[in-house]
Amino acid sequence: MSGHLAVVGLGPGDARCLTPEADEALAAAQALYGYGPYLDRVPARADQSRRASDNREERTRAAAALRHAALGARVAVVSGGDPGVFAMAAAVCEEIEAGPESFRLIDVTIVPGITAMLAVAARIGSPLGHDFCALSLSDNLKPWELIERRLDAAASTGFVIALYNPVSRARPWQFGAAIARLRRHLPPATPVVFGRAVTRPGEQISVITLDRADTAEADMATLVIVGSRDTRVIPRPGKLPLVYTPRAAAEVSA
Amino acid sequence: MSGHLAVVGLGPGDARCLTPEADEALAAAQALYGYGPYLDRVPARADQSRRASDNREERTRAAAALRHAALGARVAVVSGGDPGVFAMAAAVCEEIEAGPESFRLIDVTIVPGITAMLAVAARIGSPLGHDFCALSLSDNLKPWELIERRLDAAASTGFVIALYNPVSRARPWQFGAAIARLRRHLPPATPVVFGRAVTRPGEQISVITLDRADTAEADMATLVIVGSRDTRVIPRPGKLPLVYTPRAAAEVSA
Repeated sequence: MSGHLAVVGLGPGDARCLTPEADEALAAAQALYGYGPYLDRVPARADQSRRASDNREERTRAAAALRHAALGARVAVVSGGDPGVFAMAAAVCEEIEAGPESFRLIDVTIVPGITAMLAVAARIGSPLGHDFCALSLSDNLKPWELIERRLDAAASTGFVIALYNPVSRARPWQFGAAIARLRRHLPPATPVVFGRAVTRPGEQISVITLDRADTAEADMATLVIVGSRDTRVIPRPGKLPLVYTPRAAAEVSA
Repeated sequence: MSGHLAVVGLGPGDARCLTPEADEALAAAQALYGYGPYLDRVPARADQSRRASDNREERTRAAAALRHAALGARVAVVSGGDPGVFAMAAAVCEEIEAGPESFRLIDVTIVPGITAMLAVAARIGSPLGHDFCALSLSDNLKPWELIERRLDAAASTGFVIALYNPVSRARPWQFGAAIARLRRHLPPATPVVFGRAVTRPGEQISVITLDRADTAEADMATLVIVGSRDTRVIPRPGKLPLVYTPRAAAEVSA
């Protein structure tokens, strides 16, 4: 009666980006748990229960799914993008560690997915073509000063930076502060990519320079990629430019 | 006659990790280009030409594929994992920038895939559950000193670190030097994950601590994830442990 829990990455949104492995895991589940808009991507089935919860209730959702699986059920927790990147897999692990011994007996499968930075990068070229980092701008679970130290460290040593969770209603100023911080390290012409709702209705992609980056352009559905000193833009007639970071890098000035 | 070039991410290897979008792009191509072992993953078809080339010939391969597409053909370049992460998309962009105007008229599509760090992370829990970076240890295209600066910056500010290309025949000592460098910043008990050939025959996953990490365990098919101070290991009876990095972080000591 140890049960099974799959944490399933739905990718950026378009069903064409959902892997067969994710499809199978969803099909095999007796019960689905997830943030409402993610659950809505999975076609309803009469023999499958579903429990939608709010965006901020990751731990409660993870615990409920684990309790259900511990009864011997096949349960799936759906996650946007990749479950291991600022998503549900860590919340599930936190609950397993904090929970009863029965949680450790559950057969847990994490099904990877296309995370937002890969989807956005693919749309515009290859901005993550060299060393890069992924940083959440949410200071709900870490101090803002730590985010600033990471921005400093990454920008000053030439990592391209993918910014997750740039903005929310409760966090209106953080993205602007991050851009201001990055301007201390990077030239004004550094390319910045805004990717909103990529592969979903309302998709928007724009490329701007760091000095002109307008933080009002980002919302909760936006993933931002800030280039390094090496990141380049190739203009193309009648098309979006290609943004890429060459595979070769010279020494970064200290 | 502008042609079409798709740069297609095959994911870690198992066909169940290949997205429908990648399948479609492969099916639509008249000609396939790629590193031999990656091409071998794509079933042969009589009406589709294929040109295999060596691992180190990325730019030559990209240029040949672009010339072919510029003649008006539908061409696909296959890439392991995600084409935008230490793979073919950047090489293609380099050739477009350096090449004739006709290359900029080609309709280019990058099809994202599950990159190795996501596949390895999913197998063992959620080690990338907090801020992280992806760093190639190859010093073919950048100076070793720059790699060391990036290791210092990432480890000292609490990024989890995914190490691509830890070892090759021509680069025997770099991985050991990187581990030694990381030991300056991180406690001996920091979890380290070795993921070899994940989702392919011969898959191996192991979890070790930084002080005991044996660099002889890594080869060209290995992706290594070095945790941060916050990364945790949950032992489980009769199963691999779960390794995860909690979503919350405290201040990192300077």
